[in-house]
Order: sequence, then C-alpha cells, then structure tokens
Amino acid sequence: MPKFMDVHHGMHGITPEALKEAHQADLDIQDDEGVDFQRAWGDPESGMVWCISEAPNAEAVQKIHERAGHPTSEVYPVPVEV
Amino acid sequence: MPKFMDVHHGMHGITPEALKEAHQADLDIQDDEGVDFQRAWGDPESGMVWCISEAPNAEAVQKIHERAGHPTSEVYPVPVEV
Repeated sequence: MPKFMDVHHGMHGITPEALKEAHQADLDIQDDEGVDFQRAWGDPESGMVWCISEAPNAEAVQKIHERAGHPTSEVYPVPVEV
Repeated sequence: MPKFMDVHHGMHGITPEALKEAHQADLDIQDDEGVDFQRAWGDPESGMVWCISEAPNAEAVQKIHERAGHPTSEVYPVPVEV
C-alpha cells in the first residue's frame, strides 16, 4: 500500500500526551478509510507535526485526520524510502 | 540523544537509487558530528525529502547534510513522538 507523509502546523506546545491522544483518535477510525497511521513526530516549539501512514490514497489520510479533529491539506506520497 | 526531522525541497524526480546514494553520503561522514541518520522518505513529484536523525543538536545535522551536498536550513527537534 502507498506510504504518505503528512504535515501539520500550529500545534505549538504539543505534549507527549496530546500527541498520543491525537494519534489514538486517528487509530480509532482509520479502518473506515483503510489507513494505517504508523508514527508521528512533533516539535512543540515550531508547532509542526509529521505523520507517516500507509493508505489507499492521500484523500483517505486527509479524511481521517479531518474527522479526528486535526485536518491538514499537506499529504505527500513518499514512494521513495531508505 | 535528541531526535530531529529535517526537510529538503527541490529534489524533483528523486529515485530510490538517488535517495540511497544521498543517504549513504550522510552515513559516510555522520560520525564526524556524532549524528545518526535513521530514515528518509522522498516524494519525487513535490521534490520534498524528510530525514529522521539523532544528533547532539540541529547544527550537527545541518553540517553533515551540507558537507554531503544536500544542505537544508530546516532542521526541527522532535522531542515528542508516538
């Protein structure tokens, strides 16, 4: 299944607990769109968060993130990986 | 050791071989700054590449990337991870 990197802005001050909670909100509904959210990394200072997922397409990733309450329009396919 | 996400732009059309080669160029010299580059993901269409590393600080990541021929000023600490 294709892999995607998505990017969130404005999550200043994000704590480990808040990121875990946001990630869990994705996991709870990801099956509805066939998405598998794998990892997420956050920078409380810049407010940026990145997520790696496998999904049928970028729209599926967007739909889950939107329904989970943290929408983003930045979802990039990452077919190249090392 | 702190973890970092760095972002590269303009790598349009990047192939698996090119990403592997660029990553290897980092690995070859990363010990000079105490950096451990772990994973990298690329999107040939947008030209974006993301790398995850562990390093003493962001400057160390920048130095290795610059010497390896793919400089970036975007190096974010990611102390929060799931």
